[in-house]
Amino acid sequence: MVSALKSSPSPKPSSNSLAPSKMPMGGAALDLTGVPLPEETLSAAQRADAILLGAIGGYKWDKNEKHLKPETGLLQLREGLKVFANLRPATVLPQLVDSSTLKKDVAEGVDLMVVRELTGGIYFGKPRGFGTNEKGEDIGFNTEVYATHEIDRIARIAFEIARKRRGQLCSVDKANVLEASMFWRKRVTAIASEYPDVELSHMYVDNAAMQLVRYPKQFDTIVTNNIFGDILSDEASMITGSIGMLPSASLGESGPGLFEPIHGSAPDIAGQDKANPLATILSAAMLLKYGLGEANAAKRIENAVLDTLNRGFRTGDIYSAGNKLVGCKEMGEEVLKSV
Amino acid sequence: MVSALKSSPSPKPSSNSLAPSKMPMGGAALDLTGVPLPEETLSAAQRADAILLGAIGGYKWDKNEKHLKPETGLLQLREGLKVFANLRPATVLPQLVDSSTLKKDVAEGVDLMVVRELTGGIYFGKPRGFGTNEKGEDIGFNTEVYATHEIDRIARIAFEIARKRRGQLCSVDKANVLEASMFWRKRVTAIASEYPDVELSHMYVDNAAMQLVRYPKQFDTIVTNNIFGDILSDEASMITGSIGMLPSASLGESGPGLFEPIHGSAPDIAGQDKANPLATILSAAMLLKYGLGEANAAKRIENAVLDTLNRGFRTGDIYSAGNKLVGCKEMGEEVLKSV
Ligand SMILES: CC(C)[C@H](C(=O)O)[C@@H](O)C(=O)O
Ligand SMILES: CC(C)[C@H](C(=O)O)[C@@H](O)C(=O)O
Repeated sequence: MVSALKSSPSPKPSSNSLAPSKMPMGGAALDLTGVPLPEETLSAAQRADAILLGAIGGYKWDKNEKHLKPETGLLQLREGLKVFANLRPATVLPQLVDSSTLKKDVAEGVDLMVVRELTGGIYFGKPRGFGTNEKGEDIGFNTEVYATHEIDRIARIAFEIARKRRGQLCSVDKANVLEASMFWRKRVTAIASEYPDVELSHMYVDNAAMQLVRYPKQFDTIVTNNIFGDILSDEASMITGSIGMLPSASLGESGPGLFEPIHGSAPDIAGQDKANPLATILSAAMLLKYGLGEANAAKRIENAVLDTLNRGFRTGDIYSAGNKLVGCKEMGEEVLKSV
Repeated sequence: MVSALKSSPSPKPSSNSLAPSKMPMGGAALDLTGVPLPEETLSAAQRADAILLGAIGGYKWDKNEKHLKPETGLLQLREGLKVFANLRPATVLPQLVDSSTLKKDVAEGVDLMVVRELTGGIYFGKPRGFGTNEKGEDIGFNTEVYATHEIDRIARIAFEIARKRRGQLCSVDKANVLEASMFWRKRVTAIASEYPDVELSHMYVDNAAMQLVRYPKQFDTIVTNNIFGDILSDEASMITGSIGMLPSASLGESGPGLFEPIHGSAPDIAGQDKANPLATILSAAMLLKYGLGEANAAKRIENAVLDTLNRGFRTGDIYSAGNKLVGCKEMGEEVLKSV
């Protein structure tokens, strides 16, 4: 794995105290400072051992101009931390198989990992913006672009992960149409020679979107670009029926990793003590494992979450008959009891 | 609706005879002529009243260079016919609700239409290709670009369709990140003022990919760009469990429409008499309705298909216990009997 603190475990300035520091970003930062990612937040994050991020965004800032959107702060943070590898597991827990909208036999046993390229592609490609075309008409445009090293490094991470899982890597692209995808496929195929023990396949993105619905168990590890990863990882997480349960990790070559739940900020239920805290709690577990190399501590948290589910506690999003419906706070307390 | 022959029903040179002419494209054309879209095929198509297209592609040509791929022929045909509006219905027939991998209560009653922009965006945007970046590294790149008139015309078609359906249009984009999407959203919103009776909403593409799995019934008409439409329409069609059943229509301002099944060429079962012919048969119905203005004839075909299903005939892809498993040929014959 790539994580600053596993490869360079020497203490850093900010890690003298074990108490994590809290810094604003997104909507909170906009309200406090007028920008979605204050410089102090970015530099504190860069000095940190690992970063746990709450979900961002909300109605209040939805109509902001681009540079004042909470989402822009998130993209700046990912770019500023150079966390190019976004790991998004989508697992169906036996306890929660009923909360999937997929039939039980389709959902049961799904255990896949989407490895999404996070700091390249159309999210960051230039030129981008607004302008006029040769006919004088207004246009909006973006550039999907990938360079050799960007593909090679995400491919290597994906092969490493597949190797530790079931040894199957599916690279998703649109190489029947896009040059950026043809180049992606060429590089991924080249890197495959370094991993003869991993079975590599390729799939077009439209087909992948179908196959996730048709037969998600066929997937072990998926590697794909930034925008396809955005779409497919959300689809995959919804297939598990437990999007409120799913953590993610974003890692770079060196420097701290960024850990956050896959779900958004759910502004529709804000302040109602209804949100499922488990994705954030499991993100903290990923932080311990991938960010601080504390696999045992991570396991304790993961087990506490499973135990809490086994004891029948459910927030609304994963509730099914026969269980105990609890709010966000109570769910957190129950997990604490299980540690 | 936009279709040459509804708006200009005067007979054209090629329509003197009622017998349709057959022209090669895709893999067949590559084998015969060395190119995926021979000039004669394009010009015959341009002179036609409407075009019925078989699915294209196959292992044999998978490794061809871009300009010799069957897919390239399809893109050239769409571009050459200027069919910018791709209509992809995804409907769950009561007879087939069990073939969906979604739970019955989730799949039942799904009836949505994806209106996909088909001749713009990243599929056709320039610059595109391979090159080197400032650091001398190899790159592959594409341009996502939309101009005012491209968005306005697809938006109008989508509003027209939504108006004839349940009056709800959901425009899907990634306006929290991409300028091309911000511009898309701006134009769609502007066009909305022409359709006060249609309710317009906006959704990010990642969320749309989730919502299609979570609660597909929330959608009536979806309008989106070329690449998002490619992904979401395939996902939507798989959700119905009947991708072998779904037709599509591609229409321009004037000139003939292009009608084709949503599914691919399924090279894995080629020549085994297993394919489901219903999507192609229903594409012919769409051709009659949208391409030739023959709504009654279209209805006859649609009813014949429903009748055949009611009589229990099923190809393998939509088979469920208690029905009669038939091959492609027999299915076609049964539909003929039902007309
Ligand atoms: C909020 C948005 C910018 C972000 C993205 O598109 O990357 C989100 O959808 C995600 O997947 O983390
Ligand atoms: C074959 C391919 C070029 C095509 C596309 O991407 O448009 C297909 O997937 C489709 O959706 O019709």
